[in-house]
Amino acid sequence: MTALPETPQTLTSTLDVERVLADLTLEEKASLLSGQDFWHTQAVERDGTVVVPPVMVTDGPHGLRKQEASADHLGLGGSVPATCFPTATALGSSWDLGLLRRVGEALGRETRAHDVAVLLGPGVNIKRSPLCGRNFEYVSEDPVVAGELGAALVQGIQSQGVGTSLKHFAANNQEADRMRVSADVDERTLREIYLPAFERVVTKAQPWTVMCAYNKVNGVYASQHDWLLTTVLRDEWGFEGLVMSDWGAVRERVAGVAAGLDLEMPASGGRTDAEVVAAVRAGELDEAVLDQAARRVLHLVARSLPAMTPTDARTVDVDAHHALAREAAAAGTVLLRNDLVDGSPSLPLAGDVAVVGELARTPRYQGAGSSQVNPTRLDDALSSLRDTLGEVPFAPGYTLAEGPADDRPAEALVAEAVDIARDAGTVVVFLGLPAADESEGYDREHMDLPAAQVALLRAVAAANRRVVVVLSGGSVMSVSPWQDEVASLVVGWLGGQAGGSGVVDVLTGAVNPSAKLTETIPLRLEDNPSFGNFPGELGHVRYGEGVLVGYRWYDARRAEVAYPFGHGLSYTTFTHDDVTAEVTGSGAQAGVRVRARITNTGDRSGAEVVQVYVGDPRSQVQRPVRELRAFAKVELAPGASEVVTFDLDARDLSYWHPVLRRWVVEGGEFVVAVGASSRDLRGEVRVQVDGEDVTLPLHELSTFGEALAHPVVGDELKAALAAHPVDPGLLAMATDMPLAVVADFGMAGLDRSGLERLVEAASTGR
Amino acid sequence: MTALPETPQTLTSTLDVERVLADLTLEEKASLLSGQDFWHTQAVERDGTVVVPPVMVTDGPHGLRKQEASADHLGLGGSVPATCFPTATALGSSWDLGLLRRVGEALGRETRAHDVAVLLGPGVNIKRSPLCGRNFEYVSEDPVVAGELGAALVQGIQSQGVGTSLKHFAANNQEADRMRVSADVDERTLREIYLPAFERVVTKAQPWTVMCAYNKVNGVYASQHDWLLTTVLRDEWGFEGLVMSDWGAVRERVAGVAAGLDLEMPASGGRTDAEVVAAVRAGELDEAVLDQAARRVLHLVARSLPAMTPTDARTVDVDAHHALAREAAAAGTVLLRNDLVDGSPSLPLAGDVAVVGELARTPRYQGAGSSQVNPTRLDDALSSLRDTLGEVPFAPGYTLAEGPADDRPAEALVAEAVDIARDAGTVVVFLGLPAADESEGYDREHMDLPAAQVALLRAVAAANRRVVVVLSGGSVMSVSPWQDEVASLVVGWLGGQAGGSGVVDVLTGAVNPSAKLTETIPLRLEDNPSFGNFPGELGHVRYGEGVLVGYRWYDARRAEVAYPFGHGLSYTTFTHDDVTAEVTGSGAQAGVRVRARITNTGDRSGAEVVQVYVGDPRSQVQRPVRELRAFAKVELAPGASEVVTFDLDARDLSYWHPVLRRWVVEGGEFVVAVGASSRDLRGEVRVQVDGEDVTLPLHELSTFGEALAHPVVGDELKAALAAHPVDPGLLAMATDMPLAVVADFGMAGLDRSGLERLVEAASTGR
Repeated sequence: MTALPETPQTLTSTLDVERVLADLTLEEKASLLSGQDFWHTQAVERDGTVVVPPVMVTDGPHGLRKQEASADHLGLGGSVPATCFPTATALGSSWDLGLLRRVGEALGRETRAHDVAVLLGPGVNIKRSPLCGRNFEYVSEDPVVAGELGAALVQGIQSQGVGTSLKHFAANNQEADRMRVSADVDERTLREIYLPAFERVVTKAQPWTVMCAYNKVNGVYASQHDWLLTTVLRDEWGFEGLVMSDWGAVRERVAGVAAGLDLEMPASGGRTDAEVVAAVRAGELDEAVLDQAARRVLHLVARSLPAMTPTDARTVDVDAHHALAREAAAAGTVLLRNDLVDGSPSLPLAGDVAVVGELARTPRYQGAGSSQVNPTRLDDALSSLRDTLGEVPFAPGYTLAEGPADDRPAEALVAEAVDIARDAGTVVVFLGLPAADESEGYDREHMDLPAAQVALLRAVAAANRRVVVVLSGGSVMSVSPWQDEVASLVVGWLGGQAGGSGVVDVLTGAVNPSAKLTETIPLRLEDNPSFGNFPGELGHVRYGEGVLVGYRWYDARRAEVAYPFGHGLSYTTFTHDDVTAEVTGSGAQAGVRVRARITNTGDRSGAEVVQVYVGDPRSQVQRPVRELRAFAKVELAPGASEVVTFDLDARDLSYWHPVLRRWVVEGGEFVVAVGASSRDLRGEVRVQVDGEDVTLPLHELSTFGEALAHPVVGDELKAALAAHPVDPGLLAMATDMPLAVVADFGMAGLDRSGLERLVEAASTGR
Repeated sequence: MTALPETPQTLTSTLDVERVLADLTLEEKASLLSGQDFWHTQAVERDGTVVVPPVMVTDGPHGLRKQEASADHLGLGGSVPATCFPTATALGSSWDLGLLRRVGEALGRETRAHDVAVLLGPGVNIKRSPLCGRNFEYVSEDPVVAGELGAALVQGIQSQGVGTSLKHFAANNQEADRMRVSADVDERTLREIYLPAFERVVTKAQPWTVMCAYNKVNGVYASQHDWLLTTVLRDEWGFEGLVMSDWGAVRERVAGVAAGLDLEMPASGGRTDAEVVAAVRAGELDEAVLDQAARRVLHLVARSLPAMTPTDARTVDVDAHHALAREAAAAGTVLLRNDLVDGSPSLPLAGDVAVVGELARTPRYQGAGSSQVNPTRLDDALSSLRDTLGEVPFAPGYTLAEGPADDRPAEALVAEAVDIARDAGTVVVFLGLPAADESEGYDREHMDLPAAQVALLRAVAAANRRVVVVLSGGSVMSVSPWQDEVASLVVGWLGGQAGGSGVVDVLTGAVNPSAKLTETIPLRLEDNPSFGNFPGELGHVRYGEGVLVGYRWYDARRAEVAYPFGHGLSYTTFTHDDVTAEVTGSGAQAGVRVRARITNTGDRSGAEVVQVYVGDPRSQVQRPVRELRAFAKVELAPGASEVVTFDLDARDLSYWHPVLRRWVVEGGEFVVAVGASSRDLRGEVRVQVDGEDVTLPLHELSTFGEALAHPVVGDELKAALAAHPVDPGLLAMATDMPLAVVADFGMAGLDRSGLERLVEAASTGR
C-alpha cells in the first residue's frame, strides 16, 4: 500500500447548491462556467472564505494523468505515477463487462486517492477508419460493444464516488482537422451508429459528465450544438449531469451556454465569462439558462466533495492494480490464428523458444496525447517470458526510436535474428507500430508495419516454420501482406503497463485467450468503408458510407477481410447448439428471446464470447446484413455446457425512420444468428415479427405503388386499375410515379378531383 | 427515298418574336408556358387566325418516336417508322465524334422530315450505378466522354435546322423514385462529375432546349431549381435556349417559372397557366419573368418554322440511314477479349461456325420507355451471319419472352446447342439481358445474365474450346462468373435496328473493332461505388462516393475490375510512343500540350482511341488518381504512324474548390498519362505547373499548420516558434490546432492580441 499525501486544501464536505446559487452574483455565476486553470473548476471566494471550492478533473481514460503543480499548463508534460491499464482497444477486446467494471473500480479508487473529482473518460467514439490517430482510446467499430463496455467502466469508476466524462460527444472519428471539421452525416446514421454507444452509457450508467467533441456535426460545433447537447442528450436520453467542453473546444461561448454546454475547460482568463455576463445584461441570454449551467457546476462540486475528504480511500494497492492490469491485458489479447505445424499448434508455447523484435524488450503499451499515463511500473514481454521459460535467446531485429541505441546495420540485426530463429523450436516475433505512428492529434497515414519489421519477419519465417507473431498497436494493422508466412498470430494492442506480462500469459497458456476483435481487420486500407472520404478536406468530412461502418460494410459488399469483427480463438473449442429464437411481443413492444447452448468441447477451461446478430432483409430502408445486438462471455470447464439466454427488445429490431424521425419496428421476417464471430455463425433462426404501423401518410406525391399498397385505399385503386387497364410496360414505369402525375396523365381513371378524394379517404380511414 | 406526307398545317415561315410578345395578353403569354397537348407547344389563335403556331417535339434520342395522331396520349404507344440508331451506350462506345455528328445529321433530317421541331435528346447523365434502368440512354460514367459525344450529336441534329433537348438536367442517375428522390450531392461532386457533360454540350453546341430532370437536387425539384436552371445554366454557361420540363416534372409551376423553367410539358389543362396569371396579378411573380419565358417559347417556335416549311428535306433515304445505323452499330461493338486458342484467335471468324442463343435470331436492340423507336427495318445477327458465311447451324439454347414460342424443356434446348457446338470450329453464343430487365421507369435489380443463359454457356464451353460470346444489353453485365470459360467476348450493347448486322461485321472482320468501354465492367455488383447508397430510400439518395464515380473509384481503391474504363481490342495492334507533355501556361492560363506517336503495328487497318489522363497527386482536396481529359480516334493503315497532339487547358488541370467556390489550378506536379485504356497506360510524364494562388484567407480559426505555411506570415510564426519551442509530440498535435486555441494555450509565444496582429498582417500583406 502506498499512502498518498493529503490534499493541502481545506474543504467543506457539503455544499447546498440552491442556497449557494441564490447567493451568487451574476458575475460569480458566470465565472463558474469556465475553468479556474487547466484542471480545476472555478472557486468562488468572498473575503477569504471559500464559498464554492474548486474541484479537479484529470485526463484518462485508462489511467490517471494528474499533473504535478509544477507541470506545464498545456497538460502534456509529466504526471504523478498511476496504474496504466490497457487502452480501450485492449480492454474492449475482452468483451468482459465484469472485468471492465473491476478496472473501473480500480481507476476510480486511484482517482479518489489523488483528490481528483472526475476522470476524463471513457471514449466511446466509433472507429470509422483504421487510421484515426486516437482509435486506441476508443472501444469498437460497433456501438453495442462500445456502449456496453463503456457503461461497465463508468459504473466501476463512479462506484468509488468519483465521476467520469463520457467523450467525445459526438461524431469525433478522426484527428485530422478535428477542431474545425464538420462531420457531415445524416440523422439515421448518427442515430444508428455514432450516437447509440453514448446513449447506452448515459441511460445505463449516468456518467457525472459528458465531454463535447471539438468538431462540428453537420456544420455546427459540438460545443454549441443544441440538438446534440440538449434535445438528444437531456430531453431524449435523460442525462442528468454536466456537459463540459473538450479543452479548447469552445468557439462561441454564449451560443454554447444556450445550447447546453455548462462548463468550458480550461480557463478562458475571464474573457468568455464576461461575454456571458454581457449577453445576459443585453437580454440575449436568459439568466435562467445561465443559472441552470451554474447549478450543474455546483452540483458537480457538491457530489465531488465527499470523495475529496480524507478517508482510507486515499490509499492505492499498487501491486493489486498492477495484477489487475496484467489480467486485463491478457484478457484483451486476441489469438487471431494458430495453425498446426507438423500436426501441432505453436501456441501455447512448448519446447525451446527464441524471441525476436525490439518490442519484446521495449514495449509499446499506450498511445500519445492526453491519455498518456506515467505508469507505476512497466513489464516487458522478454523479461516475462524469461521469468516463465528461463533464459531464452533474444535478438532485437530492428530498432525503435524509443528503444536502446544500436548502430549495427539493418542486415546485421536481421542476420542475428535469423541465427537464433534457425535453431529454435518456436520463434516469437514481436512487431508493431512505432510510437510516432499513433497519437491523439493526428491520424495514421497508412496501416502497415514498418518495412524493416516485415523484412525481418520474412527472413525469420524463411528460417523457421514455427513462427508466432505478436503485434502491438492501438488499432488494426495490415496483416495480409505477410500473415500467410506465419503459423500463429496474436495481437496484444497497447496493453498498458502490464501488457508485456499479460501477453506472455497468453503465449505460455497461463491464460487461455478469450478476446475477440472489436474491429474488422481488412485486407487492405483501400477496402475500408471510409476510404476516399476520410479524413475529408477544407472543413468537411462526408460520412458517405452511411450506416455501413465496419463489418456492416464488408458484409453488405460481401468483401473478404483478413479477420472479421468478433473473431478470436481459444486454446479450447466451443460449439453453439440448439439455437432458438422466440418472439415475445409485437409492435413497439416487440421482442425476441434467443437461446443457445454453448459447450466447451476441448480439454481445458476457457471462455467464449457468444454473439447475437440480427438482420432485417426487407424494410423501407436498406439495412445492414446483420448487426450485433447482444453478447455474453461464458466461462466453461472442459466438457461443460451452458444455455445462454438473450432478450432482444424492440430497439434491437428497430431502425431510425428518416421520415417519421423515430425508432420503428417494421414488421416482417428477421434473421437472428448466433455465432463465434460475425462470420462464424453457428445457428440462424428466422422469425416473423408483428411490427408497428409504418404506413406513411398518403398525399398527392405518394407514388402509385405506395397507394396500391395502402391499407385503406389500396383496394379501391386496384379496382380502378382493373377498370382502366394500363399497358404492362407502362404500369411497371408507373409504380414510382406520384399520384399527381398519374392523375395528370389520366391513368387508372384517376383525375385531380379523384386524387383529392383518395387522399382524404386514406387520412380519415374512409 | 420515301416521300413523307406534307403537313396539313398552314404555317407562316417567320415570327417576329418581340412584336408578337408585345401584342399578347397576360393570359395568352401564360398559356405559352405549358404544352397544348402531349407533344405540341401551345398555339395562340385570334378570330381563327394563328398568331402563334404550335410546334411539335418528340422523344429521342437514338431515333424519332413520333406518335400517330391516333396514338394514346400517354405517349408510349405506337409511333411512325423511323431509323432506330444504336442506343447512347453503343454510340458512345465508338468514341467517334465524326460518326456521332453524322448520326446526328441523319436524326435531324428524319426529325425535319416529320415536321418535328425538337428531338428530345441526347441524355448525358452519368452512369453512377450499373443498375440504372435508363443507362442505355446515357453515354458514359465519365463526363468528358458524355459531353464530347453529346455535343457532336447535338451539332449533327441541329445542323438540319431542328432542335435538341439536352436531358435530364441534372443528377438524374436512377429510375427508382425518380419523380421525387433528392440526389444529395455536394457541390464539388456536381461540378466535377454530374454537371460537366451538360456544360460541355451547352458551351460547344448550344442545344435549342434543355430538359430538366424529374428528381430533386439537394432537396429542390430540378423543375424549380433556380441555381441549376439560371445561375449555372444561363449565367455561368451562357445557355441561350429554352428550358422545358420532363413530362410531368412540374411540382410548383410558379416557383418553376421564377427559377427559369420556361416551358412545362405536357399540357396541364390550363391549371398551371392560371396559377401563373394569378401569381403575376398578386405581385408574387414579376411579369418580366413571365415575358422572358414566353419570349423563349416564341423564339423556339420562330426558329422551328423554317424546318416545318415543305422543302426537299422532307424525304428520308431509309436505306442510307439503315446503312449508317449498321456502321454505327459496328463502331460501338467492343471486343473485350480475344484469347488465342491453339495459337490462333477465334475472331475474326474463320472456318465453320455454329450459332447459339435466341438473341441471335430475336435481337434486343433498344430499351423500353420513351426512347422506343418503331424501326424502319430490323437486322438479326443470325441472318446476317448466314448472309456472309452461308448456312450455319443454329440452336436457340434458351427462350425469350419476345422470341418464338418453344415448349421444349431447358435441358433439351441446351442439349441441342451442345450438339451443334461440339462439331463446330467456332461457336458464337449470343447472350444478354431480357427486355424486361431494363427500361425507363425502373432500375435493374442485379447485373447478372439469366441463369439459363449461363448454364447454356457452360455446357457449350465444355463441348468446344473456341467459344465467342456476344452480349446484348444496355449497360454493363456481370461477366466474371463465366468469362474465363470463353476465349472471345464481344459486347454489342443495344445496337439499334442494324445491331445484328453491325455486330456481325465485327465478328467476320468486315469491320475491325475500335470501340472502347465508356463504363467500367466491375467484377461484382457489390464492387461498384454507389453500392449501399443506390438507389436510396424514402426520398433521398446519398452520393456518398463523391467524385469517385466509375473508374475513379476502382483506381482510388486499387480494386480489380473485369474490364477497365476505356478498354477495347482491335484485330490489329497499336503502340503509343514518344509521349511528351509540355507546360504551355501558368495560373488561370495554365495548359499542357501532350503528344504521342501512335503506330499501327499489326497487319490490317484499324483505329485506336488514344486516351489522355491527368492526375494531381497533391492538392488541398483529395483528387481521383487519374481522370480522362482528352481523347482522339486515330485511323491508321498497317505500319502507319501519326503524332497526336492534345492541348489541355486550365480547366483540365482544375478542381472545384469547395471554399473558394470556383475552379482552381493548384500548382505542383501533375501526372499526364497516355494510353489505350484507363489501365493500359503506355506513357506517363510528370510536369510541374505554376498554379493560381489558392492560399485561403488567414483568420483565427486557421490552423497553426496553415499559418506556418502562409506566404506572408509563415516566416514570422516560425521565428516565434523557434523562440518559444514546443515539445515535438505536442507540436505534431498542434499542426491542426486553430490559431485561437494556440493563442489561448499560450503556445509559440502567441496570445490573442498577437493573433489579431498576425491575421491583419496576413490580409494586408503586412
